[in-house]
Amino acid sequence: MSLAASKQGLVALEEARRFMVDCLVKSKTPLAHAQQQADLLAEADYRGHFSHGMNRLEMYINDLHKNACDGAAVPTILNETPATAWVDGNNGLGAVVGNFCMDLAIKKAKEVGVGWVCAKRSNHYGIAGWYTMRAMKAGCIGMSMTNTSPLASPTRSKEAALGTNPISVGAPAKDGDGFVLDMATTAVAVGKIEMQRRKNEPIPLGWAQGPDGHPTTDASVAFDTACLMPLGGSELTSGYKGYGLGAMVEMFCGVLAGANYATKIRKWTHAGADSEADLGQCFVAINPACFAPGFEDRLSDMNGILRNMPTTDPALPVLVAGDPERHHMEKVDKEGGLAYHVNQIKTCTELSERLGVKPIVLV
Amino acid sequence: MSLAASKQGLVALEEARRFMVDCLVKSKTPLAHAQQQADLLAEADYRGHFSHGMNRLEMYINDLHKNACDGAAVPTILNETPATAWVDGNNGLGAVVGNFCMDLAIKKAKEVGVGWVCAKRSNHYGIAGWYTMRAMKAGCIGMSMTNTSPLASPTRSKEAALGTNPISVGAPAKDGDGFVLDMATTAVAVGKIEMQRRKNEPIPLGWAQGPDGHPTTDASVAFDTACLMPLGGSELTSGYKGYGLGAMVEMFCGVLAGANYATKIRKWTHAGADSEADLGQCFVAINPACFAPGFEDRLSDMNGILRNMPTTDPALPVLVAGDPERHHMEKVDKEGGLAYHVNQIKTCTELSERLGVKPIVLV
Repeated sequence: MSLAASKQGLVALEEARRFMVDCLVKSKTPLAHAQQQADLLAEADYRGHFSHGMNRLEMYINDLHKNACDGAAVPTILNETPATAWVDGNNGLGAVVGNFCMDLAIKKAKEVGVGWVCAKRSNHYGIAGWYTMRAMKAGCIGMSMTNTSPLASPTRSKEAALGTNPISVGAPAKDGDGFVLDMATTAVAVGKIEMQRRKNEPIPLGWAQGPDGHPTTDASVAFDTACLMPLGGSELTSGYKGYGLGAMVEMFCGVLAGANYATKIRKWTHAGADSEADLGQCFVAINPACFAPGFEDRLSDMNGILRNMPTTDPALPVLVAGDPERHHMEKVDKEGGLAYHVNQIKTCTELSERLGVKPIVLV
Repeated sequence: MSLAASKQGLVALEEARRFMVDCLVKSKTPLAHAQQQADLLAEADYRGHFSHGMNRLEMYINDLHKNACDGAAVPTILNETPATAWVDGNNGLGAVVGNFCMDLAIKKAKEVGVGWVCAKRSNHYGIAGWYTMRAMKAGCIGMSMTNTSPLASPTRSKEAALGTNPISVGAPAKDGDGFVLDMATTAVAVGKIEMQRRKNEPIPLGWAQGPDGHPTTDASVAFDTACLMPLGGSELTSGYKGYGLGAMVEMFCGVLAGANYATKIRKWTHAGADSEADLGQCFVAINPACFAPGFEDRLSDMNGILRNMPTTDPALPVLVAGDPERHHMEKVDKEGGLAYHVNQIKTCTELSERLGVKPIVLV
């Protein structure tokens, strides 16, 4: 089947990673940093979060070429205590800053039980779950949050003041099982509205506001207004809780780290930004061995209780946070590659020509 | 105006506290513990969370008389590192266990930057915000979570498996201002459904499920089924995120502390329980001075940005988490007392007769 006919191109995980490393290396980024960033983006695609994988590559590259982000920058520690660190990301790549911070948090968790690390002057850091999974691999509970460009309205506000401000919490269970929550504090991400618009279908009430500040069901209006509603939707259905969670993330990130926050954060466009983002981020590791012995056994037991609850629709089993991603990874393994949309492959072709990089190879 | 005509009775804050201390002292509880518990309950009423104040007193007292909870118990530390502690609540009163744990977390935050304390064998601990405000008073950021009896369905589940599992995060700003998030991870608390039922009015879709597992708008059906939906409501409006947050609280509380969790937690009834609750709870304090200097200034600045956003309805200003409570406390101060529902006053009269305590005095 031709690429145009299939509407997608299958790319081996390793090849996707190779292509992204090559593109980043041709964009003022040392190999070691390019590999960290590509590992994260490939993992996002592998887990089924295509909006946060290869899809972001061009934006990162545009930022790097415009010097809005410094691919070579190495984070530095500004202040440190046995359980905390305040880090300057020095405007480096999100993955480089984030890995540095989470590794530091894990080290502290192993030493004193908890590590709480905040970074200022960071950049878009990809899927929040990447960092919590890094903690999980070290046997820790991980938590990660970032602020982002304003795109969501506080309850009662006509305009956006906070970003999608994601929060991720991950914990290891037995035999590779676990709990991996990774969620925006808005009802949905912009990508979901974009999809409804392409299909010419309405969006549910509670996803986004129109220019008058009221919830809209028109996907085009919602897309143009770019004002998401917080998790929970309107005030009647407790959207103020989602707004509260978004503000909490802002407090733990921009405010605690001394980075930009709320409306002070720049817009981020596909063409790349003209200024430094100065995002704030928060990375926490907790060593479960400091508490009741047998943590992983109990978490597996709870996962089992939840997965085996009687369902409303027999075709739809109850899932645990991380299960949809687990299912997507199984699908990729079975199919032998990542099923990219044809437009993504086209973007890769353009990038390879622009940067003089070996074109991406389909399976 | 007579009590019956006014439908409410005004009680001075100090008198409400006195009455609750007296009742608890007559229920096998030492004075110092009674005072801690009464302080918390009075604060809940002062902040406008009447469901979690004096309203709970009878349930606590029934538990104490049945020996389901030990009013004299003092918590003990089972394991400790510089930044963590695992605590056995020894089945003591929630406020006694919680204050002990948060004070320990604050001490550790002052020493090493963060304190993360988990308790098993605790009891219903009242408003989660009580403990975060304790951290705020010490200049720290506070976080507190508890698991509770099953009352909420995981997304796709026909039955309840998790509690309302609240989370509170509080942070101090300038001149007594701050951020105090205190929210159940369900769309609403049971009390809101009870109120709609009393008024014979429907509930919005997304608050609760009926016995068939589908969302219901019938307040009576919702009340009888006792199966709340997670924050976000149905799967379409991202209820799985609220479910994920509820499971996260369970992981940090029941699972990490080695307490009961999920469906293993007993039901809690008005008559008092026959067994120990063995709830798990989590208390965290973070010292903002370990990060970027000027935290309180920046938080005040962000609060100002949010409160001054242009509004959809000019009559409804944008609020910051904690503002509704601030407004309620101003109202209580202005009126000179807590406006209890007439039925609450009746319950107090019954309690005073049953326990041989001086009746509660109205203003």
